[in-house]
This record gives sequence, structure tokens and C-alpha cells, in this order.
Amino acid sequence: MPEFAQRMQDMEKTAVIIRKLFNAMSDPETISFGGGAPAHEGLPIEQVQKICTEVIARDKRGVEVLQYGTVLGVKDLREAVVNQLLKPKGVDADIDEILIVNGGLETMNLLCQVYINPGDVILVESPTFVHCVEIFEMFQAKCIAVECDEFGMVPEDVEKKIKGYHPKFVYVIPTFQNPTGKTLPADRRERLAQLGSQYDVIILEDDPYQELRYSGEVLPPIKSFDKTGHTVYANSFSKIFSPGSRLGFVHATKEIIMKLFDAKTATNSHTSSLAQVVCAEFFNRGYFAEHLKKVCAIHKERRDVMMSCIDKYFPEGTKKVFPDGGLFTWVELPGGLDTEELLKEANAQKVHYIAGAGFFVEGGGKGSNCMRISFGNVTPEKIEIGMKRLGELFCSRLGR
Amino acid sequence: MPEFAQRMQDMEKTAVIIRKLFNAMSDPETISFGGGAPAHEGLPIEQVQKICTEVIARDKRGVEVLQYGTVLGVKDLREAVVNQLLKPKGVDADIDEILIVNGGLETMNLLCQVYINPGDVILVESPTFVHCVEIFEMFQAKCIAVECDEFGMVPEDVEKKIKGYHPKFVYVIPTFQNPTGKTLPADRRERLAQLGSQYDVIILEDDPYQELRYSGEVLPPIKSFDKTGHTVYANSFSKIFSPGSRLGFVHATKEIIMKLFDAKTATNSHTSSLAQVVCAEFFNRGYFAEHLKKVCAIHKERRDVMMSCIDKYFPEGTKKVFPDGGLFTWVELPGGLDTEELLKEANAQKVHYIAGAGFFVEGGGKGSNCMRISFGNVTPEKIEIGMKRLGELFCSRLGR
Repeated sequence: MPEFAQRMQDMEKTAVIIRKLFNAMSDPETISFGGGAPAHEGLPIEQVQKICTEVIARDKRGVEVLQYGTVLGVKDLREAVVNQLLKPKGVDADIDEILIVNGGLETMNLLCQVYINPGDVILVESPTFVHCVEIFEMFQAKCIAVECDEFGMVPEDVEKKIKGYHPKFVYVIPTFQNPTGKTLPADRRERLAQLGSQYDVIILEDDPYQELRYSGEVLPPIKSFDKTGHTVYANSFSKIFSPGSRLGFVHATKEIIMKLFDAKTATNSHTSSLAQVVCAEFFNRGYFAEHLKKVCAIHKERRDVMMSCIDKYFPEGTKKVFPDGGLFTWVELPGGLDTEELLKEANAQKVHYIAGAGFFVEGGGKGSNCMRISFGNVTPEKIEIGMKRLGELFCSRLGR
Repeated sequence: MPEFAQRMQDMEKTAVIIRKLFNAMSDPETISFGGGAPAHEGLPIEQVQKICTEVIARDKRGVEVLQYGTVLGVKDLREAVVNQLLKPKGVDADIDEILIVNGGLETMNLLCQVYINPGDVILVESPTFVHCVEIFEMFQAKCIAVECDEFGMVPEDVEKKIKGYHPKFVYVIPTFQNPTGKTLPADRRERLAQLGSQYDVIILEDDPYQELRYSGEVLPPIKSFDKTGHTVYANSFSKIFSPGSRLGFVHATKEIIMKLFDAKTATNSHTSSLAQVVCAEFFNRGYFAEHLKKVCAIHKERRDVMMSCIDKYFPEGTKKVFPDGGLFTWVELPGGLDTEELLKEANAQKVHYIAGAGFFVEGGGKGSNCMRISFGNVTPEKIEIGMKRLGELFCSRLGR
């Protein structure tokens, strides 16, 4: 058979991590703190049912939901993005500066098509979201980790590495970061936007969790500080509407959107219309605010149970991030415990999490005592059971 | 601003053609023979309404249609592909050899990710589908045209060019080809499959129109002759269910599907679940056979009106392809008429078609007297009006 392209080799190591991640999600017996899914219980199935029936009934000829649509996406949905998601966050956008994509991750793929030549550098957080690393590696970019402290990316190190590596992108998840749950403070957000402008680098702001805030104060996106168009804002409807609908959006200058238009055309023409029309109606009927309250209440309870379980069951000396929102916390185990090795035993006891090392592009065993724990799609009762099992496993390994 | 990637320059010339194509589709006053849309009147809006209401009602927790799905796609839909679309055509497939994609074109994008290094050669028909050329160029492949006669690709020239260029793919639309409407005979299909095996080249069979047959005998896909896994079969639900749902599938060996799994994961994770579930139900409730009859009847009438209009209104000496199915015919005008130049006048008279030259990757003015005319989404009455206008324009230019 013909040889596969070089890029498939370049992404293979990360692809193995991702494949494992998907596999682990499929056993219904296992209490999984692994995936990044939001709570089943928060999915707006009743609203979608109502909307579906009505939008199809009004679409007598099937033209709106069944015929070819436009590359940029359904206009009503782009308007909802501008008025209901961006404006309240201090970001002014024109609807022609919005492209609807097939799930938030597609933005990273399309931006790589538009910008990345093989060998180009992308600065990422340490640790960072491994699924995006897979995308960057498929485009044969070189990912370089930026120093992170308890608040996230350290701007001084970003500047140093911009000077040293001349990256195309700085990829950052500023709010309730994946995998750590950390949130970047306002002054660092402003500084990142400035660095993008000053050094002519794209700041790729990936912000899918920001609406899921359970405590602390709302922060303006990096994009709100951008004066030159260097910040590109990527977001997703997966956590605020539905993951399975595969809907996301990107906000950038018209010049960039025009290039993304070409890349989207040459990827899959446009995003599924039915999902877009239903999601647009969800916003335009005013369902979003009430729905978000419900979703946040469900996840807040799970976060609180999760955090108290860490205190209750995990060995003394465990470090954790208290996330003000989102779906994840990040745990660092004491005593030289190896989370990759322990995962096999955890899986045998029907509990799953993601071992930390895979989230560090710098490798070298970094994060081998860390783990990402998602509380999004596990009930409080099961969080209690699963965390107790994990805690007992870890403590027994330490002889405690 | 940072420089765009080299690939964006490599695809720019073709991207301009595609952008124009999309623009022309947006004027509702114009009778458009331009796009490749099927008839509005054939869209299964009533069936979709019934299905939507019921699948959402049964999905109490929203897990099936709203939560994350699997990369390969909804199992029921892959089963429908195997049993209702492939088996009747003489193609035996396992459901693990099927990947559901976001519209038929995404297959070409994903296969390029998996196989194409910059500079790799892809053999294409002359003329060929310009939208796929855009995809191939985005991956910096070099497209080389194969000699085509009235039946399509000439196998002797395919073999000669395989020997001369060592291509990764031979890209072919064997049935009711886009843009010409031609159909490749069975013996050439068999020969192409053999050539793929013999010379270790992927035969990329793109077959989105094959169910839309209005005359002539059903032919087996190239894939049915494939003994070594070198033929990859791409198809779409756009013409037999709904274009706006953005659904397609690819059938290939498990080894290739595994690589496509990685590329799909790093493109958009999976295809929209709601569209997949609705489409699966459409097949599994047995709606497809009846629906296809209706769709074929609508398009057959349009084809027949279109063909008689060419005879009635177009200048003497016009050559045309009689398509046994699909959505297009291909016309060659006499007397040195230039279809690109005439298009401006046609547009002023509110009629649109696609000028032929853009479909030839070899350039050099080839096809400048040709045009692709789509009869798919224009009513018979409007076909009559539009073709009369075009015929009068062309005749007046020839002083007839």
C-alpha cells in the first residue's frame, strides 16, 4: 500500500494518547473522570425537541435546514454570537467577522491550514490541551511549552520565547484551562494581547469553558484587549448547548475570516445546517440565560463534591487546583506516585482519569505524578464513590 | 500581520473560482444552472420532521443526539451504509471499514491529510471537479490531467501517467461525472481497480451521483472490482438525503480507516450527531427506496427538458453530453464562443452557468468554449426560460 504522509508519523505519539482517551470513554461500567463531556443532565433536550418541531414545520420546502447553506454559517447564529456571546464580554464584532465551525476544535485545524508551514513554532501552556497538540502536530508545527505558574502563562516567559522562537501562534486557554482548571488574571490577558501586537504573533485564545463560572469574578477575554487584530478568538457551543451538535465559532478580522472561508470550503464546505438553525433558535428565543444557570448549578455541585473528596480521600501532601469554573481539576500526587502506572489499577477498579504526563509537550517525564480529573459528567454520588476508590488506591501505594 | 501558509498561495487561483461560484448562488432573481444542488422539491422535509420529533422523544436524556458521539460515526448509519448502499452495488463491507464524514468532500480532505506530502501527484479527469482540485491544492498536491474521451478516463493514458508521474491517487468520478455527466463503462472500472493494485496507487472513487440514474443500466462501482484495498470509495448523502445535513461516508480498508480516524479526530472530532441519527432513521425506517424514486422522477424530467432545450435554442454545431443521471450536462459551443466572457452578459440577463475552463487543471485556455449546466435545482419552466435566453445570446453572438 502507498506510504502515509509524513505528518501522520509526526502526530503518531499524540494520536496514541487520544485514541486511548476515546477508548476509555466507552465502558459504561466505569466511573470516568476522563473525558471532557458536560453533564448529561444539563443537555437542553426539551428545548431542542420544541425547536426542532417548530423550525422544520416553518421550513415548508426544507430549504433552510436541508438544502446547501453558506460557508460562513447561518446568519441568525452568527448574530446570536455577536450579540449574546461576544458583546456582553466587551468584544465588539461584525457578523462578517464570525465563521461557524463544526465544533470548537475545527477552528484550530482551519487556522493551521491558513497559517502553519511545517516547522513553524506554536507556543503552548505547560501543561496544555493534548487534543489541540494533536492538531498542531498534524500540521507539523513544533509545540514549545511556556512556563506556567498558579495563574497560568507567565508573560515574561512568553515574551522571551517569542523572541527566541519567532512563533506563528501563542495558543492559550485562559479561562478554567484544560487540563488544569486555572484562570489567567486580567493583567496577563491584557499583556498577552499586547505581545501579539508588538511582536506580530497570533494569540489564539481558546475559550470554551468561560460561560461555566461557579465562583469568582467574570474576566474579559484576551480579545477584548486586542487593538491590532492579532488575537483570534475561538469558542464552542459544546459546553453551553450540546457537544454532539458539533458547533463552534471563530471571531477574527475579515482578512483572516476570508482565508478561513477558503480553508473551510476545502475542508467540508459548511457546518451542518439543522444543528445551526436549532442552536440559533435556542439563543434567539432567549433560552440561553436560564439554561446556563441550570448547567452551572449542576456543575458547581459536582465541583464542590470533587474538591471535598480530594481533601477527604487523597493522601496528605496532594496538591490541587481549585477551579472557579469549567469541568476539570488538576491534582499533583505526593511521594513519587506515577499516575500512568496507577491508571491500570484504577481501571481494574472501574475508575478512570487522565494521567498528567501526556499534557506536557516538553516530555521528559514531567507531570508523571499529575492527573486531570473531570467532574463534568459524573453524578455527585459517583464522584464520591470513584474518588474514594482512587484515594484508597493512592494511599495504599504510599503504605498509608 | 503574520504571513499566511504557502498552501494558501498554492490554492489561491482555484479558490477564486470557488468563491465566484458561491457568490453567484446567492441572487434569488437569477435562474442558476450554476451550483450542484439537487431539487428543493425532492428534499425529504416531511420524513425529517416525523423522524426528528420521534428520535428526540425517545432520547430522554439527550445522550444520543446531544452528547459527544464516536469518531467513526453513528453505528446505525454505518450499518445502513453497509446494507442499503454498498451491498446492493456488489460491495461487501464491514461497519468498521466505514467512517461517517461531514459531507462527501470531507473525505477528500481527510485522505489528503493521511496520504499527501507536498509535491505528491494526483491524476484527475479532464475536466474534473474544481472543488476537489481546491482541496488537493490546499495540500500542495500537483494535479495532472488524464486524457478523457466520451466515456471518461482512458485507461491506457492512466497507466502511462502512473508510470510517468508515480501518483499517490487517481481521483475519478465514474458515474454521471462532475462536470460532464459522463459515465465510465464497466470494463474501464475494472481496469482502473487493477491499475491501482498493480502499481500500488490509491484509486479514489468519488460516487455521489450514482443513485440518481434516469436511464441506462446500473454499473458496479470500481470498488467492487478491488481485490487489494487500493480503491477507496467516497460517497455523500447530499443528493439522496440532504445537502445541508453535511453527511457523507468513506469505505476503505481498516488500516486506512484507522488513519482517517486520527485525521478526523484532529479535524473536528466527529460529525454532527443529530444529522446522523435522523439520516440513519431515514434509512432504517425504509424511507429511502420511495424517496429515491421521487427524486429521480423530478430530476429526470428536468434533464429531459434541458436536453431538448439545447437542441431547440442553442446554435447549430453545439456538442452536448447526454447524462444518464446526476445533475449536470456539459456543452461545447461552436464558432469560437468564449463562455467565460459570455457569462457576464448571461448574468446581466439573470441566467447563470459555470464556464468550462476552470474545470481543466491543465489550463492553457482548454475548455474556454465549454460550460457546465446543472438542471438539478431549476424547475422545468425556468429551465425553458433560462436556456432560451442563453441560446438567443449565443446565437446573436454568432450573427445567427
